[in-house]
Amino acid sequence: MGTKDFFNFPYPAFYLKNNSLFILDQTKLPNEISYLEVKELKDLVKAIKELKVRGAPLLGIIVGFGIYFLSLKIRDNLKENLLFSINELKNTRPTARNLFYVLETLEKIIKKEDNNKRLKAKIKKIVFDFYEKEKKSFLKIAQNGNRLIPKKANILTICNTGHLATGGIGTALGVIFYAGKLGKDLKVYICETRPLLQGARLTTFEILNSPFKNIKPILITDNMVGAIMEQIDLVLVGADRIALNGDTANKIGTKTLALCAHYFKKPFYVACPISTIDQNIKNGKEIKIEERSCEEIKKIRNYLIAPKEIDCYNPAFDITENSLITAIITEKRIIYPPFEKNIKKLII
Amino acid sequence: MGTKDFFNFPYPAFYLKNNSLFILDQTKLPNEISYLEVKELKDLVKAIKELKVRGAPLLGIIVGFGIYFLSLKIRDNLKENLLFSINELKNTRPTARNLFYVLETLEKIIKKEDNNKRLKAKIKKIVFDFYEKEKKSFLKIAQNGNRLIPKKANILTICNTGHLATGGIGTALGVIFYAGKLGKDLKVYICETRPLLQGARLTTFEILNSPFKNIKPILITDNMVGAIMEQIDLVLVGADRIALNGDTANKIGTKTLALCAHYFKKPFYVACPISTIDQNIKNGKEIKIEERSCEEIKKIRNYLIAPKEIDCYNPAFDITENSLITAIITEKRIIYPPFEKNIKKLII
Repeated sequence: MGTKDFFNFPYPAFYLKNNSLFILDQTKLPNEISYLEVKELKDLVKAIKELKVRGAPLLGIIVGFGIYFLSLKIRDNLKENLLFSINELKNTRPTARNLFYVLETLEKIIKKEDNNKRLKAKIKKIVFDFYEKEKKSFLKIAQNGNRLIPKKANILTICNTGHLATGGIGTALGVIFYAGKLGKDLKVYICETRPLLQGARLTTFEILNSPFKNIKPILITDNMVGAIMEQIDLVLVGADRIALNGDTANKIGTKTLALCAHYFKKPFYVACPISTIDQNIKNGKEIKIEERSCEEIKKIRNYLIAPKEIDCYNPAFDITENSLITAIITEKRIIYPPFEKNIKKLII
Repeated sequence: MGTKDFFNFPYPAFYLKNNSLFILDQTKLPNEISYLEVKELKDLVKAIKELKVRGAPLLGIIVGFGIYFLSLKIRDNLKENLLFSINELKNTRPTARNLFYVLETLEKIIKKEDNNKRLKAKIKKIVFDFYEKEKKSFLKIAQNGNRLIPKKANILTICNTGHLATGGIGTALGVIFYAGKLGKDLKVYICETRPLLQGARLTTFEILNSPFKNIKPILITDNMVGAIMEQIDLVLVGADRIALNGDTANKIGTKTLALCAHYFKKPFYVACPISTIDQNIKNGKEIKIEERSCEEIKKIRNYLIAPKEIDCYNPAFDITENSLITAIITEKRIIYPPFEKNIKKLII
């Protein structure tokens, strides 16, 4: 599932077999490699809600393949059932733009096409084309982003933005892999990314399983970002949704990185495909932030790390204001401020 | 062990019984209440190294009582054995000033006094007097700090700075308890404080076990500080060691809070007894930062949260520059910038 001319991650985020979609259960990584088959709509809804599959770009790809394979299994009322499925999938997680981008595209086609056979063919084409296009985009993002990486650099990142977040080579982590492939000497400080530890579990795992031994991963706790920022050359993160003015929703913790980078005047780069930009949203205040359960913070596996009666606050994302962002790396080009003007030019 | 006219925490950090010192094992909180008896030097060394007992002010008190009770148990070569014990205890943890303050005071007395009986009596007096004085200091810190707390406030804190860190009512958390006792309406956002989760395990536990129902504790992950800082009225933290210019070593993560507070122009207060100030250290660069094992980050209890072969960086503390600190709350008074001048005046 990687980009063949680059490197293939040994544990693909998903695969297609016997007219079914199989998804790597990311909640079990790095301790266990296990795939779950999407047999019906509820399997996919559960996998997304429980973050068995996650990462904004990957969610777009996965719901596309999900709808396609469901279309093959549905016997009656194809259109109605697919529109119902799309609606259910829209209600899984509110923040990642890419999921809505794919579902809205499919929704339009389904509403217009009355012939079942043609409809299935159209869905298949859209979904496979989108996946191929996204994979190419990730490679272009990596190439463009690589120009911002010095020959020797300490990079700080958060969450997971590699194959496991994109199905391709990644966004922020794709840039790192690309620079690593060119032989650059990179130390990558990885925020563990509480509560669900995508940095500790997934990004570490991807780098350790890459062929690039000149990329040295170092795990830190999220609260170390202020302490280590002086040693860092650049911060590189992904995005879940970007407003037209450049305000960026990404994994909780991203804004803290941006604030610390700002104080020390370190570059703060966002890497993402253009499908992450939401043309209906003017600024970050309009982005809906998913709030998740308190249990995610209080329990690590089944071990309670806090009194069971304590209240928590658990937003899954935060909004980094455009003024804190040095540049946004896309497949077309690197965008610099003023973002409002330059994003408009990009998406025309 | 609390301050009687204030409130007694139901689970004292330590108690003295049958000529022995019993220490609450804080690594087992909040799931289990268990005390360990200090029978010999190595019990105390182990308890400190493994953070079964922690918190800069409490460490000062505990090593004092430790040396006193050891003096009662030592049969031969009292002076020599006590000086050896002091040396071992100095090598437990390098950052907390208070531990060295007490050990250095005792060391001087031991070197000077040749009569065993008189020596034991002198140690006893120093240790008990120091404890009483520290408890009164915490109360004065709380009273002084309370003047900085509005009638209704959202407060952000990190780690644990209450009874479990001081043996008294606390430093930063003591201020919060005092304000709470006066009926102020407080929401306290508690950083969980990775890797060892003192915020999630201890600060939550102390507030939930206090009689002040107008103090509402809310647990957050450490990476949320940037996202919530706009809603926060003030940040309140403790200190492990303060340089003569006000640079402050405290639990890792403190500097990240200070940087985020700085951006949003929110007050950032440090609360600690004067014994935390190191008169031999001019600025933060001279403070030795303890680096702890990678396992602390990678394992939560026995559950591995990252690939076992990953490297980590695990400093236990960071240094917050004086320019990021609004005021330091001590038992004598609140010190404002310029700290270099005002700390000098304070300690004369």
